[in-house]
Amino acid sequence: MVGAGAVGSSVAELAGEYGHTVTALADSQSAAVDPDGIDVQAALDRKSAEGVVGGGDVTDALDGSYDVLVEATPTTLGDAQPGFGHVETALERDRHVVLANKGPVAERYGDLRDLERASAGTVRFEATVGGAIPVLSTVEDFGPSHITAARGVLNGTANFILSRMAAEGLGYEHVLAEAQDLGVAEADPSFDVEGTDAALKCVILANVLAEDREYTLADATVEGISDLPGSALELANEDGRTIRLIGEVVDGEVRVGPRLVPEHAALAVTGTRNIVQLETTNAGQLNVSGRGAGGPETATAVLADVDRLPE
Amino acid sequence: MVGAGAVGSSVAELAGEYGHTVTALADSQSAAVDPDGIDVQAALDRKSAEGVVGGGDVTDALDGSYDVLVEATPTTLGDAQPGFGHVETALERDRHVVLANKGPVAERYGDLRDLERASAGTVRFEATVGGAIPVLSTVEDFGPSHITAARGVLNGTANFILSRMAAEGLGYEHVLAEAQDLGVAEADPSFDVEGTDAALKCVILANVLAEDREYTLADATVEGISDLPGSALELANEDGRTIRLIGEVVDGEVRVGPRLVPEHAALAVTGTRNIVQLETTNAGQLNVSGRGAGGPETATAVLADVDRLPE
Repeated sequence: MVGAGAVGSSVAELAGEYGHTVTALADSQSAAVDPDGIDVQAALDRKSAEGVVGGGDVTDALDGSYDVLVEATPTTLGDAQPGFGHVETALERDRHVVLANKGPVAERYGDLRDLERASAGTVRFEATVGGAIPVLSTVEDFGPSHITAARGVLNGTANFILSRMAAEGLGYEHVLAEAQDLGVAEADPSFDVEGTDAALKCVILANVLAEDREYTLADATVEGISDLPGSALELANEDGRTIRLIGEVVDGEVRVGPRLVPEHAALAVTGTRNIVQLETTNAGQLNVSGRGAGGPETATAVLADVDRLPE
Repeated sequence: MVGAGAVGSSVAELAGEYGHTVTALADSQSAAVDPDGIDVQAALDRKSAEGVVGGGDVTDALDGSYDVLVEATPTTLGDAQPGFGHVETALERDRHVVLANKGPVAERYGDLRDLERASAGTVRFEATVGGAIPVLSTVEDFGPSHITAARGVLNGTANFILSRMAAEGLGYEHVLAEAQDLGVAEADPSFDVEGTDAALKCVILANVLAEDREYTLADATVEGISDLPGSALELANEDGRTIRLIGEVVDGEVRVGPRLVPEHAALAVTGTRNIVQLETTNAGQLNVSGRGAGGPETATAVLADVDRLPE
């Protein structure tokens, strides 16, 4: 386990319940490492009390004994470091990798697949799209070539803000402050409200769906919700519609932006819920919805990926 | 392939697109068999023209050359024959089995698992619950022990009738006749409108979720919609609610019956759509919805199962 934020901590805490042993837990500054299994709670308590999870560092963790690296450090853009380097180290050692970090999958998909091809290890990344919702495994089940389009609500913070603006007739700044008080939005909310987070998820979906090209964030057309006037939601409401931040992958294009949707349509999920709609060649439209973020929620996707790895 | 109705025909027609060879296609009267691959279209054309798919019979198909038996004969209750016998023959030959037929999984789950344990073959049955919707694979991903309850709309015919009654203020008999004209309801609709079909799907879910007991249709409490007065839907509507035929597996109990649900709730899907809600221990509520019936739709679930089989 590299990364000890909300998702990493939850994976470490739940791993035992799913039959796994955590042989290392690292954050950017420190690591607890024990080939027989670390005491997860002690490591997390130490992080709270002293700011470090243990006496080692991330290199000790990556060089230690493990079958699967879970990479859950914060998403970074561009070269996707340091996450990409962690993945590289594990694959070069022929270990499996499960990612919760979107950076390497969204920004360096080709490099990631190249490393995987040269390794005995396998890479999986269900947790990078839609938190607890099994989006990528559903794509895998149907087969990418049988899916013609994907669209959905992929950012809970933006959706919470839009839902509240529509339901209460409040302005963006007011609802953002409320979301920050509730812990639904971060102090710097730009990653969520400017559409970047949703766009990264759509880019990952586009990479999985594409047969013959690679996408990065630079290929996405992205518009956020921070400039959306409350009056737009009022006008939509008079017409039986509402506005959601919709991400879509259609005809090889990746787009994220505020869109009008019918008020009671499946896409108009409320609060922090996410939804993904897949258009399939033989089975019509499929909707999957649930909690798109949160530590334990996203951890279930990581642990499901671990169970899907080859022996 | 045994069974050449809507689902069986669709599986046979789509198998090539998914990279598989159909070495036999049988219905109750006849079979086309060729270890190098039959001409699927010719067999289906012959069935239309002459009433038989080929010159052999089902025994020739079951004794022939194949890696996977797809069992898609009509669901039967009690001893679940002849479907169960087909499955038995294949497993005793150490072949894999993918079921679209609900009978063996709902009525003889213990016997089915016993046969599987004694075989080198594996049994899968995604297509038996929710058509194209990946219900059972999602349960498998989360792990049955992490799912505390399941509920949903699992019969498209009953849901079509209730949706139309609510939307148009029409009576049951009128809408049933309309559904029969549209091909949404069968001439004898009792399997759908009395809740039997939804109950079988819930029993299968209960079997998959249960750690320590086996369920059959006899364990389910089932009430249908044929006695539901239009006035009940009107009363519900005045209160912002509607009525759906809901199946649920909660606390070891299997129940199907008409239930009040909020008018715009996720459970209030319209038309022939199905939805399943799973309550999970660590990831909250997950919804999956889509087409719960239809030949090509259900065939995609069969073919996804084939891809999930071990080598």
